[in-house]
Amino acid sequence: MRRALELAARGPAVDPNPRVGCVLLDADGRTLGEGWHRGAGTPHAEVAALTAALADAGELPPGTTAVVTLEPCNHTGRTGPCSQALLDAGVSRVVIAQPDPTPLAAGGAEHLRAVGVEVVTGVMEREATALNEWFTASARLGRPVVTLKLASTLDGRVAAADGTSRWITGEQARLDVHRQRATAGAVVVGTGTALADDPQLTVRLPEGDPALALLHVAEGAPARQPLRVVVGTRELPASARLLDDVAETLLLPTHDPAEVLTTLGGRGIHHAWLEGGPTLAAAFLRAGLVDRLVHHLAPALLGSGAPLTGDLGIGTIAGLDRWRLDDVTRLGDDLRLTLTPEGAA
Amino acid sequence: MRRALELAARGPAVDPNPRVGCVLLDADGRTLGEGWHRGAGTPHAEVAALTAALADAGELPPGTTAVVTLEPCNHTGRTGPCSQALLDAGVSRVVIAQPDPTPLAAGGAEHLRAVGVEVVTGVMEREATALNEWFTASARLGRPVVTLKLASTLDGRVAAADGTSRWITGEQARLDVHRQRATAGAVVVGTGTALADDPQLTVRLPEGDPALALLHVAEGAPARQPLRVVVGTRELPASARLLDDVAETLLLPTHDPAEVLTTLGGRGIHHAWLEGGPTLAAAFLRAGLVDRLVHHLAPALLGSGAPLTGDLGIGTIAGLDRWRLDDVTRLGDDLRLTLTPEGAA
Repeated sequence: MRRALELAARGPAVDPNPRVGCVLLDADGRTLGEGWHRGAGTPHAEVAALTAALADAGELPPGTTAVVTLEPCNHTGRTGPCSQALLDAGVSRVVIAQPDPTPLAAGGAEHLRAVGVEVVTGVMEREATALNEWFTASARLGRPVVTLKLASTLDGRVAAADGTSRWITGEQARLDVHRQRATAGAVVVGTGTALADDPQLTVRLPEGDPALALLHVAEGAPARQPLRVVVGTRELPASARLLDDVAETLLLPTHDPAEVLTTLGGRGIHHAWLEGGPTLAAAFLRAGLVDRLVHHLAPALLGSGAPLTGDLGIGTIAGLDRWRLDDVTRLGDDLRLTLTPEGAA
Repeated sequence: MRRALELAARGPAVDPNPRVGCVLLDADGRTLGEGWHRGAGTPHAEVAALTAALADAGELPPGTTAVVTLEPCNHTGRTGPCSQALLDAGVSRVVIAQPDPTPLAAGGAEHLRAVGVEVVTGVMEREATALNEWFTASARLGRPVVTLKLASTLDGRVAAADGTSRWITGEQARLDVHRQRATAGAVVVGTGTALADDPQLTVRLPEGDPALALLHVAEGAPARQPLRVVVGTRELPASARLLDDVAETLLLPTHDPAEVLTTLGGRGIHHAWLEGGPTLAAAFLRAGLVDRLVHHLAPALLGSGAPLTGDLGIGTIAGLDRWRLDDVTRLGDDLRLTLTPEGAA
C-alpha cells in the first residue's frame, strides 16, 4: 500500500478526479504491474496497472491481488467501472485504503465481494484520505468546499476611508494567498472587488516554491491555473485583468451562493477559494456556505474604511457567529488565523 | 546585590514609589543591616537599612559598603535625600544596580562621587530594572505608560447592532483583564462606556491567583484597588457601580488625553490601563499617547455593530497606523495580541 500511495501522489493534486495508485501482486507478493491516475480523462489507476501487467504477461496469474488507494469505482464515466475491470482480469483479492466517498462511484467493494472476491478495506486509510483532502471533503458535502479568505486590520477594515487598500498585509501574507489559490479549483470574487481592485487572481509564485507542484497536471503539460470566477451582475470593462488569457474566467451573473457552488461542482471543482469582497463574503456567510476562514490580520489600525464583511443579519450578541480557531501562524509582520465552524468535525 | 533584589521584591509592586532593597556590609562582607521600601510614605530602603544597622551597632564601622538596587535619591520628598543619609552615616562605598530614571531624584551617584565615596554602578541592572518596569518606563516618558485594552470580533466589532456585548470574549480573556488591571495604578474608561455597560472596573480575582500579589501594599493592610477613572463630560447616575465604595473613583470632565495623563502622573500613577470605549481609544490613539495595545480577539463575526475605535483621522492607506506584534497568546477560545508602536524600543 505504501508503494500504491507513492504512485498516487504522482497524479495532479488539484483535479476533478482523486489521486489514486494501484499495484498488482502475484500470490508470492511479486509486482505484476503498477499504475496511477494522471488526471481527468486519462485511465484510472487500476486500468493503468492492469495494462502494464497484461502488456508483460498477457494474462494475470491465479491468486493476483490488487492493492489500491481508493475503492475501485463502480460506475461508468469517461471510463468503465474499475471493479468490473479487475474482475474481468481475474483478480482474486483487492486491498483498499480509502472507501469511495462519492455516492455516484461507491459500491465497488460491495460488488467485488458479492461475486466472491476477497476484499480488505481500511489499510492506511488516513494516509490515502490525506492525499485527496478536498475531493473527500467535497464528496461528503455534495458541493465544493468553500474557504473564505479575509484580510484586515485589527479593527476589521479592508480598506481606508478613500478605498485604498494596497497594502494592508505584507509580502509573506500575499505570498500565502498565491499558495492557497494553488490548492483551489476556483478563485472567486464579487464584481465589486473585480471593479475596485482589478485583480488578476492568478497563482504567481517564485520559481522553486513547493506550492507550484499543485499546478502540475501531467508531465510536459502547461501549469494549470485555477478557474477565475466573478460573481454578480455588474459588467467588467474589456480591459479588466480578469479577462486576460492567462487563465479561464467564468462570469456568474447571480447573487445566490448555492447557485455558484452548483455551477462549480458541475465543473469538477472540489475547493473554491473566495477572495471577497465584503458583499460576497456576507452572502456566503449568511447562507452557511463557508467551511473555512483564512484570516490575514495586519497589526495595524485604520479607524474608518470598508469593513471585513457586509451585514450578516445578526442583531444581538446571542446571534454571534462563532468559529473555532484551528491554527495561528505568523506570516512576517502579519498573523494568519485559520478557522472552521464551531461543531465541525 | 542578589539579596538586595530579594529585599526589594518584598515591597508593593504597584506603588507611586519604586521597589528598592539595600544591604549594608562591613569591610569583610558581613551584613550590618538590611532594608527595603514598603511603599510611598514609608522610609526609603537605604534609611531602613541604616536604621537596622545603627540600632545594633550605634555607628557604622569604617569601610562600610551600601549595596542598593536603585541609585540613592538626591532630593527631599517626604523623606530626605538618601545619598546624604549614606554620607552622614559614614558609608565609604556604594554599589548600585539601576540608575535613577527620574530627572527629579537622579544625581545621587554623582553627588556621592563628588564627595569622595567610591561608587559602582550597573551591577545586575537588568534584574533591578525589571523589578520596576512601569516606574522606569513612566520615568522615561515623563507620564504614565498607557496600555489600551481592545476586545473585538474578527471583524473589529465590540458590540452587536443592538449594543449588546456580553460576552464576546470568553472567561479566560475576562480573567486576563482582571490580572492586567492589577498591574495598573489606574483603570480608565470614557463616560460612554461607563453609561452603556455600568462596569465596576475593580480587580476581582479568585483566591490564590498570582496577580493578587500586585494588590499587596503592606503586611496586614487591605488590598489596593487601582484608581478608577472616568473621562468625559457626561454625568453618571448615583446608582453607577463606578460610584460604589469598593475603590476610589476619579471623574475627569475633559476630552484631552494629555490632561488625563498629567492628572494621573501627579497622583504617582505609572501605568494607566484604558478599557475604552471606542471614543476614548480613538482620542488616545490620535494623540499618540498609547504605548501598548492588548487586544483580545474572539474567533467570531458580527457583520455590524460598534467598531473597535472611533475615527483616527486616517484618510488613506499610506496613513495606516502600524504596530509591532510582540506576543500572541491563546486565552481559551480567544487570542490575546500584545502590540507596541512600530519603532519603539
